[in-house]
Amino acid sequence: MDDTGIFLHSVETLRLQVDRRLVELIPLPGKEPGRLGEAAHYALLAPGKRFRPLLTLLAAEAFGVSPSRALDTACAMEMIHAASLVLDDLPSMDDARLRRGRPTTHRVYGEAAAILASVGLLTRAFGAIAGDAGLQADTRIALVETLADAVGFEGLVAGQALDLAERARRRTVAELDELNHRKTGVLMMCAAEAGARIGGASEEARRELGEFARRIGLAFQIRDDLIDVQEGGEHIGKDVGKDAGMTTVVSALGPRAARAAIETHLVAADAALARAGCDGRLGVFARSLFLGRKAAA
Amino acid sequence: MDDTGIFLHSVETLRLQVDRRLVELIPLPGKEPGRLGEAAHYALLAPGKRFRPLLTLLAAEAFGVSPSRALDTACAMEMIHAASLVLDDLPSMDDARLRRGRPTTHRVYGEAAAILASVGLLTRAFGAIAGDAGLQADTRIALVETLADAVGFEGLVAGQALDLAERARRRTVAELDELNHRKTGVLMMCAAEAGARIGGASEEARRELGEFARRIGLAFQIRDDLIDVQEGGEHIGKDVGKDAGMTTVVSALGPRAARAAIETHLVAADAALARAGCDGRLGVFARSLFLGRKAAA
Repeated sequence: MDDTGIFLHSVETLRLQVDRRLVELIPLPGKEPGRLGEAAHYALLAPGKRFRPLLTLLAAEAFGVSPSRALDTACAMEMIHAASLVLDDLPSMDDARLRRGRPTTHRVYGEAAAILASVGLLTRAFGAIAGDAGLQADTRIALVETLADAVGFEGLVAGQALDLAERARRRTVAELDELNHRKTGVLMMCAAEAGARIGGASEEARRELGEFARRIGLAFQIRDDLIDVQEGGEHIGKDVGKDAGMTTVVSALGPRAARAAIETHLVAADAALARAGCDGRLGVFARSLFLGRKAAA
Repeated sequence: MDDTGIFLHSVETLRLQVDRRLVELIPLPGKEPGRLGEAAHYALLAPGKRFRPLLTLLAAEAFGVSPSRALDTACAMEMIHAASLVLDDLPSMDDARLRRGRPTTHRVYGEAAAILASVGLLTRAFGAIAGDAGLQADTRIALVETLADAVGFEGLVAGQALDLAERARRRTVAELDELNHRKTGVLMMCAAEAGARIGGASEEARRELGEFARRIGLAFQIRDDLIDVQEGGEHIGKDVGKDAGMTTVVSALGPRAARAAIETHLVAADAALARAGCDGRLGVFARSLFLGRKAAA
């Protein structure tokens, strides 16, 4: 195994730790009424890259703290992400049939159970951070507060509302960047900053980690749109061509300029990481995400 | 004005403080895309008794702390309550047309905006507590954790799932008490315990405040069911007769025994309050809720 192989192997170990801890943090299926626990497991433990929790773990590590100390916070990021996907997919929103290669949660468990599972996961995210006795009370408070900001009326919730509200309108690339930032970037920033906070990073270094994650998020969204244009649904595990009526960076710029935009974001991400003055494994991880062919779940 | 009049006047002042603070804690309507802010205001600021926030404020006061110190936590309780009502009313859940005397949020703003406003309010509740600089970090952490428990897979979310899952089945009075507890009592307990915590109450006194609130909640639910059976929709501002196919304590016991059950719960509530050894204004407030004719919103 070469260096990159060893590195990816160790990231895979972290990913498995996240999945094991996620199972522990939510109720066992069958214990809850209305297949609620089952729906929550289905939504949360679907195959995925666990990109946000890995950002948290690797950001903590970048500042010299064991990833295990950031594990519950990392899991909280994945819970929020899973909860947001369930809601985005609802009939009243994107009305999606496939997600992460499987039927969407509401198609399997019904709308009511899907919504309740989503709210349960969202709530559990805050509870898991607040209940993490391994972190100082001050740290936990700051994490809850920044996570609430990332999710709420200025964060993911606003991003989804913006997306639904102006879907028919032709957007500029700047507007698309803003939309993509609110829809996904804001939680990636939160995940990276949370890890940096647990790692004891300075406020400035935390901000740079946030900028790093923001750029990675934007690059990733463009990559997602590229794949959406170019490939079939079975390759990426979610509905393809649903964006056909919408403007994306790819449809606005064309595939070639879109690829260049990805590279611009990745270079800016590297620069932010360098300014943060932390260990470079996080950068290698981020780059590695762009080596494969499959899109983000 | 007699003593009760003066008392109710001072409670009304607290209620107005809650409403003013609620407006400050969420974004101004119009600032957010897709009428999201408007939907959140509509759901949160609908006319209501503000029972849960008042429980928090009066519980803090009962232990000698100014209600103003508990104001943001009190508002968080109302945000959670409003968020849960929006979800309960959705077409995939109760499919309700009226709430608090007005069309339900999803009927005015659409399902997507209603769901997003609900998630925004839920999230803001956690953020408001975490961001309350007037409280110690330890206190805020404990409040976030207990609130998450009250909302999540063992709390309101489970209550709603239980309600939807077994609606057709005939329930025993014990099962109905459990259902009512999960659907509403759990947040009332949380609201009272939160106030007691901010008031510096002992763990035992906090538990008694919780028991007080649990009993009041059960009594209130039976009262609600009585009104649902006896009166028309315009009197209580929400859909009436929707419970016709379901068992309630009233349909299980008959109105007379149901009235006796209310009194039993109120006596038990008084006893819990006495054991908590705190000021009695909270008890007067709770009793006052049962003097009027209108049901809970």
